[in-house]
Amino acid sequence: MTITHATGYAVTDPKDYLNFQLKKYELEPLADDRVTVAVEVCGVCGSDHHTLSGGWGPWVTDFIVSGHEVIGKVVEVGSKVTEFKVGQRVGVGAQVASCMKCKACLNDNENYCKLKTDGYNTKWWAYDNHDHQGGYSTHLRAMEKFVFAIPEELKSEDAASMLCGGLTVYSPLVRNGTGPGKKVGVVGLGGLGHYAVLFGVALGAEVTVFSRSDAKKADALAMGAKRFIATTAGFEQDLEKEFDLIIVTASSSKLPLDELLSTLNIDKKLVFVGLPDEGLSNLTSQTLSSNGAALASSHLGNKGEANDMLKLAAEKGVKPWINVIPMKDAAKAIKAVEDSSVRYRTILVQDIEPLP
Amino acid sequence: MTITHATGYAVTDPKDYLNFQLKKYELEPLADDRVTVAVEVCGVCGSDHHTLSGGWGPWVTDFIVSGHEVIGKVVEVGSKVTEFKVGQRVGVGAQVASCMKCKACLNDNENYCKLKTDGYNTKWWAYDNHDHQGGYSTHLRAMEKFVFAIPEELKSEDAASMLCGGLTVYSPLVRNGTGPGKKVGVVGLGGLGHYAVLFGVALGAEVTVFSRSDAKKADALAMGAKRFIATTAGFEQDLEKEFDLIIVTASSSKLPLDELLSTLNIDKKLVFVGLPDEGLSNLTSQTLSSNGAALASSHLGNKGEANDMLKLAAEKGVKPWINVIPMKDAAKAIKAVEDSSVRYRTILVQDIEPLP
Repeated sequence: MTITHATGYAVTDPKDYLNFQLKKYELEPLADDRVTVAVEVCGVCGSDHHTLSGGWGPWVTDFIVSGHEVIGKVVEVGSKVTEFKVGQRVGVGAQVASCMKCKACLNDNENYCKLKTDGYNTKWWAYDNHDHQGGYSTHLRAMEKFVFAIPEELKSEDAASMLCGGLTVYSPLVRNGTGPGKKVGVVGLGGLGHYAVLFGVALGAEVTVFSRSDAKKADALAMGAKRFIATTAGFEQDLEKEFDLIIVTASSSKLPLDELLSTLNIDKKLVFVGLPDEGLSNLTSQTLSSNGAALASSHLGNKGEANDMLKLAAEKGVKPWINVIPMKDAAKAIKAVEDSSVRYRTILVQDIEPLP
Repeated sequence: MTITHATGYAVTDPKDYLNFQLKKYELEPLADDRVTVAVEVCGVCGSDHHTLSGGWGPWVTDFIVSGHEVIGKVVEVGSKVTEFKVGQRVGVGAQVASCMKCKACLNDNENYCKLKTDGYNTKWWAYDNHDHQGGYSTHLRAMEKFVFAIPEELKSEDAASMLCGGLTVYSPLVRNGTGPGKKVGVVGLGGLGHYAVLFGVALGAEVTVFSRSDAKKADALAMGAKRFIATTAGFEQDLEKEFDLIIVTASSSKLPLDELLSTLNIDKKLVFVGLPDEGLSNLTSQTLSSNGAALASSHLGNKGEANDMLKLAAEKGVKPWINVIPMKDAAKAIKAVEDSSVRYRTILVQDIEPLP
């Protein structure tokens, strides 16, 4: 008998975004290429706060069950699913579907499909426009393509936040050649930044963390960073043409962008994975022309990158810095994101009794 | 006997930048790695207008003899020069020296040396700080590294403007993989844009020209562009993820930047070679994240690229669209740049009787 409904911690009003109430709702159909996952743990991402509170704009769905860093068990598979079996432990990240037909999808860039279905507050745009809800819940569905096998060596609570937070930085790291002999700068040490350090180091690069103050210096070095630089006046002076890549995980528009760009070697990229809402008004092309620098952005990663990342994490023992709490305490986790007190990711553990 | 002075068409006041008067001045010393070139022809670049008129800021030197697209004959070589002989036809572009010691210089990126000496309105920063003047003159000096052999097949008046205008677009074309099977967009059809079309086509790519109106459509197609697109509202709608590279040669800050970026394929670059003075205030990282696009800039090219470009031009018969006039008419050429009437580069022919 196909599962038809899930129960999740739902927010029903962006003005009351810390008010999670259990709610039962209909799942999207189990199409032949989809997998149903019973949620075991779910990470809490900065996106959850931005979306629930309306900071990223009006809601797409009437209510939101957030959460897009899920580890769980396969409980159903569609008729054409070949990669997964019922009972298998799997992960689902911040995307659950794409059109599978566009230039991006046909070239292993399904994470850039214009009709992608995100982890929540979204619809199956390329299909029946059914609402999709996320992982602060008992169950969710995703296309097989967006489900990942989890290596045995990884604990569920460690693997969960890799599927958004980890992949978001892993993809630009590997697409820009991070490895032994390369120097990577990481700007901002939050959930994403901490993964950029961990995976940068795991890939063999020398990592430098930039932060506004020295407050997180000890953490950065403990994560494996070689250097920690507080971005006070003149910080860039000894770093001319130093880095092969800079990943910006901070979302402030007050970044010292000119100074950071000046620390890039020739023809290298500064990649934003945080999103300053206010734009980059201080940027000029003269800023970029002194070293041929490029300013770029990046969105998640593709399936191959997700699988490679999980394999690397298993091989190198990459262990995120997480707090594990019951799912009913989701509001506390959102608050910790909001006031930047989380060190460095919260993982919610399943505790829902499904509503009848 | 070493040549000590040159005579050139000099401007002495940015407010009177069309008033060229013959002036005799002392050349920088003939150091052991320098070459003295007797100017035969010199191209007129947009930079000449911007610099002479003070549009790019206060002058560095007391007067300016502009011109940085020179073809001429070697008349002297320093004691350690091995690449050139007296009597040889050579070219000198928009850079005549670099420090030869920094990370950029040591990695074939001498065009990004922070102590580079430009073609005029500049000093020998890494050396004795002597003034350097440009090519609307009888003679100039350059380090051997910044002198280029000119293939026999190229006429001097055709080769001249390749050394700045050509190289400025050739370098980002090749550094971003332009070749058969690639699609390149060129924004703006002026001196630089026309070279981006010619060299993009010579490298085997399919070139599309973007311009504000249809005025230059026939020219673009005659240069070898496959498509011409006027950037009226909605122009980007059929071009999603179309281009492997976009080179922006227009210097307006009113560019439809979001729309142009949306036409890039995943992880590709839009490279500015024109410099909007006003900044890129309409850019957000969200604009870039939908396709992983990067916004970059580029400055000239290195020696290997210059030599490769000249070889390609000789082999493929690349012929720029130029107007050839006497050097005494430099003011007319500057005026034609200022009012955008030049189609597409003016070349000045030597006519100076050296002052006593």
